[in-house]
Amino acid sequence: MNEQVAGRRARGGGGASRRAERTAVSFETARFIERNIPNFEILNEEALQIIEHNAETILEEIGVNFVENEAALQRWRDAGADVRGERVHIPRGLARKLCSTAPSSFTQHARNPARNVEIGGRNLVLAPVYGPPFVRDMEGGRRYATIADFRNFVKLAYMSKWLHHSGGTVCEPTDVPVNKRHLDMLLAHMTLSDKPFMGSVTAPERAADSVAMAKILFGSDFVDQNTVMTSLVNINSPMTFDGIMMGALETYAAANQASIVSPFIVGGAMAPVTVGGTLTQVLAEVLAGVSYSQLVRAGSPVIAGAFVTSIDMNSGAPTFGTPEASHITYGVGQLVRRLGLPYRSAGAFCGSKLPDAQAAYESANSLNMGLLSGVNFMLHACGWLEGGLVSSYEKFVMDADQLGTLHHMAKGILMDENGQGMDAIREVGPGGHYLGCEHTQANFKTAFWRTDLLDYKPFETWAEEGSRDTMQLANERWKKMLNDYVQPELDVAKTEALEAFVAERKASEPDAFI
Amino acid sequence: MNEQVAGRRARGGGGASRRAERTAVSFETARFIERNIPNFEILNEEALQIIEHNAETILEEIGVNFVENEAALQRWRDAGADVRGERVHIPRGLARKLCSTAPSSFTQHARNPARNVEIGGRNLVLAPVYGPPFVRDMEGGRRYATIADFRNFVKLAYMSKWLHHSGGTVCEPTDVPVNKRHLDMLLAHMTLSDKPFMGSVTAPERAADSVAMAKILFGSDFVDQNTVMTSLVNINSPMTFDGIMMGALETYAAANQASIVSPFIVGGAMAPVTVGGTLTQVLAEVLAGVSYSQLVRAGSPVIAGAFVTSIDMNSGAPTFGTPEASHITYGVGQLVRRLGLPYRSAGAFCGSKLPDAQAAYESANSLNMGLLSGVNFMLHACGWLEGGLVSSYEKFVMDADQLGTLHHMAKGILMDENGQGMDAIREVGPGGHYLGCEHTQANFKTAFWRTDLLDYKPFETWAEEGSRDTMQLANERWKKMLNDYVQPELDVAKTEALEAFVAERKASEPDAFI
Repeated sequence: MNEQVAGRRARGGGGASRRAERTAVSFETARFIERNIPNFEILNEEALQIIEHNAETILEEIGVNFVENEAALQRWRDAGADVRGERVHIPRGLARKLCSTAPSSFTQHARNPARNVEIGGRNLVLAPVYGPPFVRDMEGGRRYATIADFRNFVKLAYMSKWLHHSGGTVCEPTDVPVNKRHLDMLLAHMTLSDKPFMGSVTAPERAADSVAMAKILFGSDFVDQNTVMTSLVNINSPMTFDGIMMGALETYAAANQASIVSPFIVGGAMAPVTVGGTLTQVLAEVLAGVSYSQLVRAGSPVIAGAFVTSIDMNSGAPTFGTPEASHITYGVGQLVRRLGLPYRSAGAFCGSKLPDAQAAYESANSLNMGLLSGVNFMLHACGWLEGGLVSSYEKFVMDADQLGTLHHMAKGILMDENGQGMDAIREVGPGGHYLGCEHTQANFKTAFWRTDLLDYKPFETWAEEGSRDTMQLANERWKKMLNDYVQPELDVAKTEALEAFVAERKASEPDAFI
Repeated sequence: MNEQVAGRRARGGGGASRRAERTAVSFETARFIERNIPNFEILNEEALQIIEHNAETILEEIGVNFVENEAALQRWRDAGADVRGERVHIPRGLARKLCSTAPSSFTQHARNPARNVEIGGRNLVLAPVYGPPFVRDMEGGRRYATIADFRNFVKLAYMSKWLHHSGGTVCEPTDVPVNKRHLDMLLAHMTLSDKPFMGSVTAPERAADSVAMAKILFGSDFVDQNTVMTSLVNINSPMTFDGIMMGALETYAAANQASIVSPFIVGGAMAPVTVGGTLTQVLAEVLAGVSYSQLVRAGSPVIAGAFVTSIDMNSGAPTFGTPEASHITYGVGQLVRRLGLPYRSAGAFCGSKLPDAQAAYESANSLNMGLLSGVNFMLHACGWLEGGLVSSYEKFVMDADQLGTLHHMAKGILMDENGQGMDAIREVGPGGHYLGCEHTQANFKTAFWRTDLLDYKPFETWAEEGSRDTMQLANERWKKMLNDYVQPELDVAKTEALEAFVAERKASEPDAFI
């Protein structure tokens, strides 16, 4: 099972540390998933080669745009690309060669080393929802997110056994000025959790702030030599790399911090309506984006992937948990593995307005597909609602519970002597039952995944207890989790230094609201 | 997509037929799924060989029980097994050899030939829930099922585009005497639908009634030469074949009708607590059961498989949609394919009391796993609730809608010139959009799966329309379907003959209620 009890860990010295140990609530966090099952390979070799050939054709003949970014164009010229205006034509083979310097796997450090994650290989790291401007809970309904909500979601992620990562913009704190939000968000991740987190990408100077705060938290030398942030750089499909996002990528790559280079695909709108065409465009975009990260700093860590949704051709609405999104996610996984890069995709996606059956069907479709497609870093693994417009308190804990099924699924089937169970079969024999046998007694505690949320009670008990549906159970659960939350220890000097940095940066410029 | 419009088809001649054509409501039914994607193979060759070796060890050394069935024991003796009391020890290799006469694929005929299904190969045939004594709907809550409910579910299955099969005991009509239910159930399948259906297995004489009624519907010669029923023969795990179930199997095999030979597995109770042990026991049971069908009549059609659930080790409650059930389903699929037999497993399983998020997470986990594990016949593909105690009207249409995702997923990724979409990528170029391009216009109607149930509307529209959740949408949908239902034509003489048979058989014995 590869779980470990990575409980509250005192980081301060002396008395504080001892006090912490006496009063600590031990929160179990599972180790990131190390798959012991194969990936689902939907494309055959011939299809893969067609897509790879066509992607290079796009790069060479059609080209990609690097917008408002003269330095990027110069880097491409220096690398041997044919640059015409803002259009970069990349000769066949060049991008693939440039990508080869990116590591196939890297460690993202957490301030609690027990919570470091290894991104790549056969691993899967799970992080919460990213980006919604709204939140929803059962009593309060749908409303604009605030920094108080943001802190709540950071706490819930910290308390969630199957989440390995604190994420980034778990919701948009709309009550904080746009140009200062990143400071409060980072402060929350750094002080309210000890899991790894993401940096700001909304402007190059905010990426620089993120690096500066990370240096306060981890120490300047440590950050120079290790990856402590993974940040989300979306590509504007089709084939457009804007100056702001690339500016963030440049800042992080130069500081040896990881970026996710990820086309944001709405099939039929920002990519061709066919899966084959979408895969081709995604591969071209990934090749160009990852290459560019390596032009900025060869060897800097990067995650390749795609955010994928399709579109309802009647209404234009984005759709989630669809078979076409699964096709794309399986296919991109194969293409990214052939590039030797860590893969980002999937999440608990849904279009539903409520954490109801629609939300769960769509999310389960996406989560299962994420596991089997070989994803290494899954953003939006819990809490996503309404096409990403809403972070839902109830759905956060529902999805987070389901993430346990991915951990157990990934263990595969053990065929050692205990796994074969022949002694049990001999002992029980035809017509017997296994509940009391020795093999069952020895294994039952760890044999099966167990929910911390869902209802398995007999109908009568369930009815007596109020006939609660999953939303009600989830509502009770997130409230209890927030109530039980205990802040992980952090050296007082570090906390003060982080707070001082935030205060100083906030004071240095006027509030901006767009 | 392999869909076909298999609308209402007049079976009578002359005027009735022409009238039917004028007034016909055309109900689209998708053709059974023909997979163009690989199966997910969780076990490697070494693991498969260990399990196959151990299963033969069980058959030879431990043996299986054929209970209260002297004829069966004699058949086994004649075949070369070592029979001691009711325990049959099957020499290594014998069962596998006997299984080899069972067809790897067979056609189950429907009275509407457009709805025939091919069970085996890379196909997947979907059938509704089987067995619940209760029904539930949003207004009426949970209550004992009646024959009126039964007829409603047969109609809903007939109206459901993605269901290929009418199933069997879609709910238990508890208001009809136990010894006469099968007659009313078969009459409903035969007259209210034109999709293929299942026969009765609760007693050998009820199986004989099923064959007799099928002969009225299809003609005696046709039934002698073709398979028109697939019936569910559960094995009492561990390793016990009771006389009643085997009596039904004998009746069907002798009449060349198909049986599903299927251990009913509650992991940890009726099978070892480890997946490897369960797979071994299931394979032994399948080998023995399928062999026995071939001893009754070599070449008779059979489906091998497993009904799989695990157990909550704290409460003893069965659990659904769990990773362990997925492990077993994937593994059994591989083992059954190596025997060259059609595979039955999976379903829209859940333990939830309501068609809520829990129900949907669990069901989606099961449905996805069912598709990828290579299942050929999926019973319980829609409508299952509360661990199989309840047939839910709302969940029936929710699941039935999700079955569309399996159809589209199974299509795989087309990489012909249209699929590659390079013309579209050239036409649109960096920074453009695909909504208006020629390739999108040519493909958008069939490119993406579309729900007939779920909500994709903008938040504001959804709120104005009453903020309906999935249960409410489903409630409206099943009512509309029943309202729109039009009975498929059937020759009046056949209807009368079937009704006469039912009346005569009912009159021939007193009502029994247990």
